[in-house]
Amino acid sequence: MSHAPTDALEARHRTIRQTLKERSLDALVVTALPNVLYLTNFTGSSGITVITADQLFFLTDFRYVAAIGDTRGTPHECPDMNLVVVDGSYDDRLAKLLEMMPGARVGFEAAHLSVARHTWLTSTLGAGDTSPNLVATEGVVERARVRKDKYELAVLHEAGRRLTDVAGRVVRAVKQGVSERELATAIDARIGEAGFERTAFETIVAAGPNAALPHAKPGERRLSEGDVVVLDFGGVYDSYCVDLTRTVVVGRASERARMVYQAVREAHDKAIRAVKPGVSRFDIDEAARASLAAEGMAEAFGHGTGHGLGIEVHEDPRIGRRRTDVNASDEAVLPGMVFTIEPGAYFPGWGGVRIEDDVMVTESGVELLTHGNLELIEI
Amino acid sequence: MSHAPTDALEARHRTIRQTLKERSLDALVVTALPNVLYLTNFTGSSGITVITADQLFFLTDFRYVAAIGDTRGTPHECPDMNLVVVDGSYDDRLAKLLEMMPGARVGFEAAHLSVARHTWLTSTLGAGDTSPNLVATEGVVERARVRKDKYELAVLHEAGRRLTDVAGRVVRAVKQGVSERELATAIDARIGEAGFERTAFETIVAAGPNAALPHAKPGERRLSEGDVVVLDFGGVYDSYCVDLTRTVVVGRASERARMVYQAVREAHDKAIRAVKPGVSRFDIDEAARASLAAEGMAEAFGHGTGHGLGIEVHEDPRIGRRRTDVNASDEAVLPGMVFTIEPGAYFPGWGGVRIEDDVMVTESGVELLTHGNLELIEI
Repeated sequence: MSHAPTDALEARHRTIRQTLKERSLDALVVTALPNVLYLTNFTGSSGITVITADQLFFLTDFRYVAAIGDTRGTPHECPDMNLVVVDGSYDDRLAKLLEMMPGARVGFEAAHLSVARHTWLTSTLGAGDTSPNLVATEGVVERARVRKDKYELAVLHEAGRRLTDVAGRVVRAVKQGVSERELATAIDARIGEAGFERTAFETIVAAGPNAALPHAKPGERRLSEGDVVVLDFGGVYDSYCVDLTRTVVVGRASERARMVYQAVREAHDKAIRAVKPGVSRFDIDEAARASLAAEGMAEAFGHGTGHGLGIEVHEDPRIGRRRTDVNASDEAVLPGMVFTIEPGAYFPGWGGVRIEDDVMVTESGVELLTHGNLELIEI
Repeated sequence: MSHAPTDALEARHRTIRQTLKERSLDALVVTALPNVLYLTNFTGSSGITVITADQLFFLTDFRYVAAIGDTRGTPHECPDMNLVVVDGSYDDRLAKLLEMMPGARVGFEAAHLSVARHTWLTSTLGAGDTSPNLVATEGVVERARVRKDKYELAVLHEAGRRLTDVAGRVVRAVKQGVSERELATAIDARIGEAGFERTAFETIVAAGPNAALPHAKPGERRLSEGDVVVLDFGGVYDSYCVDLTRTVVVGRASERARMVYQAVREAHDKAIRAVKPGVSRFDIDEAARASLAAEGMAEAFGHGTGHGLGIEVHEDPRIGRRRTDVNASDEAVLPGMVFTIEPGAYFPGWGGVRIEDDVMVTESGVELLTHGNLELIEI
């Protein structure tokens, strides 16, 4: 498993410290694990990072101490990390650490701290003149994560290459008589064999009418002649997620299947062609949406065109329908952003088609991370 | 996939309504998905339940509406469900629903609602006389979930039977030269083939010195002569989690490996024999801990003896070291509780041993959900 090099972590810390300065914060408590990983390379399941203008504290328990020790002196060690070993309650230890910052303005991640933990922390820290003050923040680290750095792009490229390869093998495993669930198990095995740490989400295999549900769970239905089958799967490679969907037909495709497939493929291609730096994420969505609408399938496309990918399988930017209630400054896609393009068309009782690839915004346009032949495949 | 029968859901609703009454709450907003599933059979990824003395509202979006519709009239439909379809923001729709309960005391799950969402909801609902009042609650549904009902016990029994079978196959797949990661992939494939929906957590395969880390990630290390190998894996079957660990030796076990293995096995057996209704969870832990201490391995056992299992892979009761800061009334195990027994001994630089099975508390004692031959296996 590879990890971000120390200089990438340093650059990330600089970005966060710049935000602290802009918001007059003395520290930020990072409790969301994907954000912790981004700042420290820590891939375990329990850890808190506290970053200040000139320090970085990392709280974890005995289970991970040896693993942290192993990174010391390597090219991917977290710079200037003060390791705080938790023996008992994390929040107790966190409170003790914050008590050493009297009067400080301490940001916390309002989207990633429960009311219960916040209530406990504020009552433990107290409200005196020398108590640190907890200040709600949102998306400080997430905003830094939207534009991937060189290391992240290299990992995502490799992950995309591997998932493309898996897709080729998966399509060959589709055959009449196999159940959705069996096929999902086979896909998961291919993902593991391809060197992914795990699947990025529960693999979707939806055949026939089941394909009308964008989030169908694979069941006991056996693939039969004429079934349109949506295969949606992803993998986590060196902590980064990629995600891909192909739709194939068992046996000979009906006229309708052919027509829906071509319309979705056209929407997929048009959305990808719309991607370049400075373009609104809403306009990318609109490219897919207008294309389907032109075929009379506006109503059949009920979800957004795509979502950002990275340490999480759903992150910013959201390539969705135009909304007026969001900050316009978040709207333009920029070099280093990575997201899916996955239009679909769904018809209750009949089924559905979805085609998904992952793209990266470059300085001049777009590059595909996953790809492959999108001619309709009849098996 | 099976689901809880309607009468089981009814009984669960009665339990929650009793708690509402005791706490003078008019409603409870359930945002934790495992709790939502427990109350409604909903297995999707987005949904909120609002339960009152005589109503149950279920908020979800278009992706799941068809699936909900399909349950209507079946033996596992959620009784008296008022389906509220969300088109846009969940919290927006939730606020609109709560506004129809002027002056009500509305409990929310403080451990499962972020500060950001809570802040938004309170400011949206306002503080007027006719505004509903949000009241923090903790563990209302979790407490009901600790003692499994008849349906849940049947599912957990079947899941345990299947995982026991997987364990037998997994042990046969261990061989010299295979990497930890390859073996983990093979285990995950067996779990899928056995009919599990997914793995319950990231499979652990830790060989040689890596086994000293209780939460090691499978890596590129290839199994070699003399390696002690910890295999820890679990599956989700009909939404319920089971979890099992075996430790095997590649080639001939050293005297030390044999000694550590026997000590852990003895601790495992003693903890299981300590389980019966009315016994403190701390005493079950102490049975394992004292057994290892008698062999001079007290320091080598750094984690708790076990954790509850159910819709989540870690839930109450926690079978851990005696603490004095918890409510004594939570301590005794009772019929219907299901948890793991998983003592271990870890020696940095050398490796470790862990043996884990899942047990259920019966009216008179204990029953194993997973089992098998625990003689030391040399491969």
